[in-house]
Amino acid sequence: MRVTPWEVSGHIDYDRLTKEFGTSRITKPLLGRLEKAAGESHFMLTRKVFFSHRDLDWLLDRYERGEQFALYTGRGPSGDTHLGHLLPWVFTKWLQDRFDAELYFQITDDEKFVVKEGLELGETTRLAYDNVLDIIALGFDPNKTFIFVDTDYIRSLYKIALEVAKRTTFSTAKAVFGFDNSTNIGTTFWPAIQAAPCFLPSYLKKMNVPVLIPAAIDQDPYWRIPRDIAPRLGYYKPAAIHNTFLPGLQGSDSKMSSSKPESTIFTTDKPDDVKKKIQRAFSGGGATMKEHREKGGNPDTDVACQYLYQMFEPDDKKIKDIFDDYRSGAVSTGEVKDILAKKVIAFLTEHQKKREEAKKKLDKFMLKD
Amino acid sequence: MRVTPWEVSGHIDYDRLTKEFGTSRITKPLLGRLEKAAGESHFMLTRKVFFSHRDLDWLLDRYERGEQFALYTGRGPSGDTHLGHLLPWVFTKWLQDRFDAELYFQITDDEKFVVKEGLELGETTRLAYDNVLDIIALGFDPNKTFIFVDTDYIRSLYKIALEVAKRTTFSTAKAVFGFDNSTNIGTTFWPAIQAAPCFLPSYLKKMNVPVLIPAAIDQDPYWRIPRDIAPRLGYYKPAAIHNTFLPGLQGSDSKMSSSKPESTIFTTDKPDDVKKKIQRAFSGGGATMKEHREKGGNPDTDVACQYLYQMFEPDDKKIKDIFDDYRSGAVSTGEVKDILAKKVIAFLTEHQKKREEAKKKLDKFMLKD
Repeated sequence: MRVTPWEVSGHIDYDRLTKEFGTSRITKPLLGRLEKAAGESHFMLTRKVFFSHRDLDWLLDRYERGEQFALYTGRGPSGDTHLGHLLPWVFTKWLQDRFDAELYFQITDDEKFVVKEGLELGETTRLAYDNVLDIIALGFDPNKTFIFVDTDYIRSLYKIALEVAKRTTFSTAKAVFGFDNSTNIGTTFWPAIQAAPCFLPSYLKKMNVPVLIPAAIDQDPYWRIPRDIAPRLGYYKPAAIHNTFLPGLQGSDSKMSSSKPESTIFTTDKPDDVKKKIQRAFSGGGATMKEHREKGGNPDTDVACQYLYQMFEPDDKKIKDIFDDYRSGAVSTGEVKDILAKKVIAFLTEHQKKREEAKKKLDKFMLKD
Repeated sequence: MRVTPWEVSGHIDYDRLTKEFGTSRITKPLLGRLEKAAGESHFMLTRKVFFSHRDLDWLLDRYERGEQFALYTGRGPSGDTHLGHLLPWVFTKWLQDRFDAELYFQITDDEKFVVKEGLELGETTRLAYDNVLDIIALGFDPNKTFIFVDTDYIRSLYKIALEVAKRTTFSTAKAVFGFDNSTNIGTTFWPAIQAAPCFLPSYLKKMNVPVLIPAAIDQDPYWRIPRDIAPRLGYYKPAAIHNTFLPGLQGSDSKMSSSKPESTIFTTDKPDDVKKKIQRAFSGGGATMKEHREKGGNPDTDVACQYLYQMFEPDDKKIKDIFDDYRSGAVSTGEVKDILAKKVIAFLTEHQKKREEAKKKLDKFMLKD
C-alpha cells in the first residue's frame, strides 16, 4: 500500500491508513451529531464512503454555538474530470446545501505544472478552466461558491502562502511529503500554496472562520502543515472529512485515475463508451453464468456493485436488494452492469447538458483579485 | 571573507571573489567598447567601482548589431535606503540614459519577509513603497522605467518563476545558496522569483530581449540559476555588471548596511546628522595632526576619501589632487571629511526634495498586472 497526494497504489487498508495518518474514524455518536446538525443523513456517510476526519467534532461544537463554517476543496487539473473526482464534490454540494456554507474551490494548475514532467503551464491552466465546468455543472450555489485557478488568483494566495512558507522548514516538508534533494523548488514550495485556502475565508473576511475540507484521504498530508501552523497565525486549524477512493474499472484495489484512461469514466464520455467501459469492468461474479447462479458473486469486489454503492444508488433498500441478489446469484454481473450503465448514462447526460450551460456561468463563480 | 546575497563580512578580496564566483574582470578593451557604445565614459567604470561582469561582451555584440537591451536591478526592502544602495542605481541611470534602455526594477518584499526573522509582510511591503521614492528621486525615465513590488506584481512573476522552479532542484539551490534542511520553503523557492525579471522583458514583449543586470557582486549567485536555465526556456542568458561594496562608515572592510545604522548614511538623514556621522567615520590619517602632517595618510583605507572616490567626486583631476594631498599630509582627515560632508549634504538635500515630489509620481513608474 502506498498513499501520497501524488500516488495511490496497492490494496488500501483504510484502518491502517487512518492510524498512519493520525486521523480519526467517524464514530456513531459523531455521525449522529453531524446528521442532526444537517437535518438529514447522507448515504455516503452511513456507507462509510466518508469515513475519517480531523476535528469534525470541534467544527460541530462551533456550529452548534452559531459559528458558520466554510468549505474548502480542490482539483489538480492534469487531465479531464472523471467520476472519482465528482464523488467528493457531490458530497460537498450536500454539505453546502445543508449547512448553507460558502465553498472555496482551488484549481491547482501551478501544482500540476511543477509536479508533472511534460505538462506545459498553459496546458494545466486550460485544463483548469475546463475542469471548472464540471464543478459548476454539479449545481453549487453561485452566491456561495468561489472557484479560483491558482495562477490567476495568486495575488491573494501568495501573501497567505508566504506566511505558511516562512514557518515551514524544508525538513518538515520533506518528512510530510517525502521530498528529497532532487525535488524541484516549485514542488517543495507548493504545500504553502495548497495550505493558503485553509486561511482564505478568514483572510478575506478579516475574522476567524472555521473551515471544513471534504477530500479523498490521500490529500490529508497537505493539511498537516496548515494545522500545525494555524495557531501561530492566529487562525483556527482546518477540519477535514475524508472519503475512500472510487476504484478504477479494473478492480477495487485501484483508484480511478486520469492517467489510466482504460480504468476511468470521464464526465465527457458518450453513452456508448460508458456502456462499453462498464461492460469490461472487473466482475466479482462467478467465472461462468452457471457458476454464478449456483454460488453467487461478491459485491464487495465487483466494481459495478461498488459504483452503485458508493455513488449511484442512494436508496438503501435498493442497494441491499441488489447486493443480496448478487450474493445469492439471482442477479448476474451483466445485469448489475446494465443497472449501473443506465444510472451513469442518465447522470452524465444531465451533467453534460449542465456542463455546456456552465460555459456561460464562469463569471458568476470565479473568484478574482 | 564571506560573501552571500544575505551576508558580507571580512576583508573583501575582489580578485578572489571573481575567481570563486566565476565572473570576469572588465578588461581595458572591453571597457573601451562599452565607452564607445555609450558615447562617453563613467568614473565608476574607470575607477573600477564596476569591475566585474558576465557576458558584457556578448551584450555589446548584440547592441552593436542593433539589438536593444533592457536593464534589471532590484532592492530588498528590509529598512531605509542608504548611500550604498544608491551607488549602483546612479550608474544604472547612466546606463539607461546612454543606451536609451528600459529598466525593470524589482522590490522584493516577499524575500525580506521569508528571510528575516521578526519582519511582518505588511512591514516589508510598506518599506517597499517607501524605498521606491528613492528610486524615482534619482530621475529615471518614467516612460522607460517599470518598478514592481513582488507581492503586487506576483501574477506575472509567478508564471515565470514556476518555469524556473520546475527546472531547479533543491540540490542545485542548496549548492548555490547554502540552504540546508532548516531553511524555510519560502526561502528555498525565492530564487525562482528573483530569476523571473531576467525573462520579464522577453515575456512581456513576446520576443527575446537581452538583459543587463547592474548590481553589487554579492547578488551574483542569483543569476547563476537563470543563466543555467535560460537556453531551456528559449531565452537569452542575462548579462551582468558588478560593483564593489560602498564601505560602512566604520571602515573599508565592511559594507554599508541598514542593519548597522551607526555605519550608514540614510537617504533621509538630515544635514546635521550627516555631518556628525561623517566626522565619526574611520580615518586613514595619522594618529595626531602632527603625525599626519609629517607622514601623511592612506586614502585607500580612509572612508571619506573612498566615498569621494567611489561616488561623490566624479572629477578625476580633483580626486587625484585630494588623494595626493592626503597622502602627503597637506590635507587632513578633517578637511577631507568637510569636503565629503558638503558634497553629501548637497546631494541629499536635492534628493530629499525629489523624494517628496516622487510621492505624486508613483503611478507613472509602478508596473501592474
